[in-house]
Amino acid sequence: MSSNTIVIQSAEVIDLRVPTSDQLLGSDPFHKAPDYSSAVLHLETNTGLRGVSIVFTIGAGTDWICHGIRDLCQLIINTPLDEFTEAPIRLYRRLLDHHQLRWLHDGVFRMAAGAVLNALWDLWAKSVGKPLWKLLVDLDPQFIVDCIDWRNISDALTPDEALSILQRVRPNAKQRESELLQGGPKAYCTAGWLGLSDEEILTTIRKLEDKGFDAFKLKVGQDSVADVRRIRFMREAIDVDAELMVDANQYWGLDEAQRHIDRYLPFNLKWIEEPIARDDILGYIELAKRYDAEPFHLACGEHAASPVIFKQLLKSGSIGYCQIDAVRVAGVNDVMAIILMAAKFGVPVCPHGGGIALCNMIQHYAMWDQTSVSGHSDTQLVEYIDFLQDAVQNPVQVRDGRYVSPTAPGWGLEFRPDFVQEFQFPDGIAWNQRDPRTSGVRFEVPSASPSETLEQKT
Amino acid sequence: MSSNTIVIQSAEVIDLRVPTSDQLLGSDPFHKAPDYSSAVLHLETNTGLRGVSIVFTIGAGTDWICHGIRDLCQLIINTPLDEFTEAPIRLYRRLLDHHQLRWLHDGVFRMAAGAVLNALWDLWAKSVGKPLWKLLVDLDPQFIVDCIDWRNISDALTPDEALSILQRVRPNAKQRESELLQGGPKAYCTAGWLGLSDEEILTTIRKLEDKGFDAFKLKVGQDSVADVRRIRFMREAIDVDAELMVDANQYWGLDEAQRHIDRYLPFNLKWIEEPIARDDILGYIELAKRYDAEPFHLACGEHAASPVIFKQLLKSGSIGYCQIDAVRVAGVNDVMAIILMAAKFGVPVCPHGGGIALCNMIQHYAMWDQTSVSGHSDTQLVEYIDFLQDAVQNPVQVRDGRYVSPTAPGWGLEFRPDFVQEFQFPDGIAWNQRDPRTSGVRFEVPSASPSETLEQKT
Repeated sequence: MSSNTIVIQSAEVIDLRVPTSDQLLGSDPFHKAPDYSSAVLHLETNTGLRGVSIVFTIGAGTDWICHGIRDLCQLIINTPLDEFTEAPIRLYRRLLDHHQLRWLHDGVFRMAAGAVLNALWDLWAKSVGKPLWKLLVDLDPQFIVDCIDWRNISDALTPDEALSILQRVRPNAKQRESELLQGGPKAYCTAGWLGLSDEEILTTIRKLEDKGFDAFKLKVGQDSVADVRRIRFMREAIDVDAELMVDANQYWGLDEAQRHIDRYLPFNLKWIEEPIARDDILGYIELAKRYDAEPFHLACGEHAASPVIFKQLLKSGSIGYCQIDAVRVAGVNDVMAIILMAAKFGVPVCPHGGGIALCNMIQHYAMWDQTSVSGHSDTQLVEYIDFLQDAVQNPVQVRDGRYVSPTAPGWGLEFRPDFVQEFQFPDGIAWNQRDPRTSGVRFEVPSASPSETLEQKT
Repeated sequence: MSSNTIVIQSAEVIDLRVPTSDQLLGSDPFHKAPDYSSAVLHLETNTGLRGVSIVFTIGAGTDWICHGIRDLCQLIINTPLDEFTEAPIRLYRRLLDHHQLRWLHDGVFRMAAGAVLNALWDLWAKSVGKPLWKLLVDLDPQFIVDCIDWRNISDALTPDEALSILQRVRPNAKQRESELLQGGPKAYCTAGWLGLSDEEILTTIRKLEDKGFDAFKLKVGQDSVADVRRIRFMREAIDVDAELMVDANQYWGLDEAQRHIDRYLPFNLKWIEEPIARDDILGYIELAKRYDAEPFHLACGEHAASPVIFKQLLKSGSIGYCQIDAVRVAGVNDVMAIILMAAKFGVPVCPHGGGIALCNMIQHYAMWDQTSVSGHSDTQLVEYIDFLQDAVQNPVQVRDGRYVSPTAPGWGLEFRPDFVQEFQFPDGIAWNQRDPRTSGVRFEVPSASPSETLEQKT
């Protein structure tokens, strides 16, 4: 081990929660009052370099992820970074294929494993002074292919096909890179949170239009009469050429989804997001078939738990937009696999954003996709959240409706110390004097009534 | 609230692990050295009655489940049992649809929620002095239907269809009950754990035959030459009429699964279990089509994370055996939905067993299925594990290859205090003087090599 070898020495895990539920920002029919949160991992090294990553959550349960990350970090303490950078798949397997832990499945386990892997990728990028996207863009195609766990996905995409995809666009990488440094991936934003009034929505739209946005989303699901009214309201509020998407956050069953979607047909929607359960592959196939002649497509992925689920959604042709999330699956390695599968099946990669600081991560995936995999920026939209940007030292920026390509090393995820102090749970000043019934697991809002009952109203 | 109202006052969660890895019991290609474990929940009440349930795990990670259960229990402390027994779906929704926690998905979250629900069902059964299966058998069909979350499954089974299924067999319930009290659900056992020698396997088979077993399973996956040798060895070791099943524990990708299964065709297998990833629905459909003319069927379910996954496996006709697990999904409520869907599609319910004490739970589901849902015992096999039976005061029993129908109230899951003292992790005497590298998350065995490489050998 040479004297300048970077070694992971310790891990600090921070439970960070912001009481966004006070303003109902981020609200939808299922997630009525989210407190935008992050489980933050700091991997400390002997050199002072710090690997950072987050898992985005919405309040209660962040501690579950933190518990998992702490446990997993035992598997990498004292590991030299070189061991990771030589062949990232080895540490991926050490975590994901752990002979006992793998019993825990996707969800908390895969998210926690993703946090560890993403922090290692961050460390690597910082050690070479590059933003994450640039590290990925500069990697050899074969090296990328070797980062991927092929066991369960090679029936949809073979390693050789992945290599071809990467090699095909490689000659244009420099050109694409300089184009994206002029104006980054195109962004869109949710203006129609469930809990907001028409007036608040309108204010949001105008503010976003001033920043150059021309693609907007709203939450639907509970009540199709109110939803149609609001879709019409937003359609009329935005420019005639602007794009409008709706998001049902998995609120419907299959039959119910059809009843709702049928009423949305007049509004020229770009996509309908998560109409049904995130893993109901056969349901997605059925919906895609039913609406084959319509101009909209189905969008899904922020809750797709693994590359196996993405494989089926993509291979079957049932989704038209692939909404990767940076922290739901097992980190960069899993997302590489998903973006490559999306490229094979010609589905635009439209990453899922959120706060706290999720957008800081997804912009790198969009940059990599648009430089090195799909190799274009013609059809992708990247979600942007217009609040909580002050959490980190390098907030994401948009200009003319596009992300400003990030230049800070790694993910650019350094949290502001005063932000951490304020929002650390449960001891931060935002929380420690609060009624415990309005925070954590005990913070309940009346649970969603059965959708059957709701449907009778509509 | 009447004076004899039962109220949940506190929750104790115990991390119980047995170093079964010392003998490689329970081993398979992915789970090379499991330490059979349980997260044990004790719900204590004002009356001295205790609600008990477990989540079965295989060592490291049990603490993740324990953390989750402790958190969720905050949602039910001070709840009167009546609130649950009046309409179990309400507490189900309080947990599963929690507006922030549901972000955590299946896996750890759903398993922890299932633990809480199962302990409530246990408490209810004990409060009326019935074993769990008998409580379920005596419930009104409409009450059962109202226990189920229909949101994501009614395209496969409607509430009305479920009601019809239950009503159809209800007239025979008394008759079925007395038949099952003579001889309970038929059992099978794994004799061919991956880590055992031929001699050890033979000893296990003879011991099981003495108990009346005539259905056996072995682990396969890693090396098809060795697997075929061992399948032949077991075929020759057991009676000519005995049934033989193999279990690949999701070790293969889709193409690899076909290459392996093709070599197993001469051996008259009853089922091939988990050939591919637990949620690769399209993969299951493809395999089922390919082997449509063969006498074996695919089996799956112990890792199916939710009723949505079961729905697709059943609706598509791709699995021939439905392997429910008592603790992977969200408790009795989810399992009711799955058993009813299996009945509609004519797929035998063959529950997944394991230790510590998982078999104590699954026998109740088998009893309920064979009395009140499928209403027969002609095609089902229930997994049985022939070790760690001494963990509880009422161990499962088999006679003539059948479970002896349980009569203890509730699940019959009271752990022996000396067992808890010995195996509590990490302070029990079985663990506290052990090298920490051989326990918990730091206990690593070389991770599975990529299956691609392994396949080249075969």
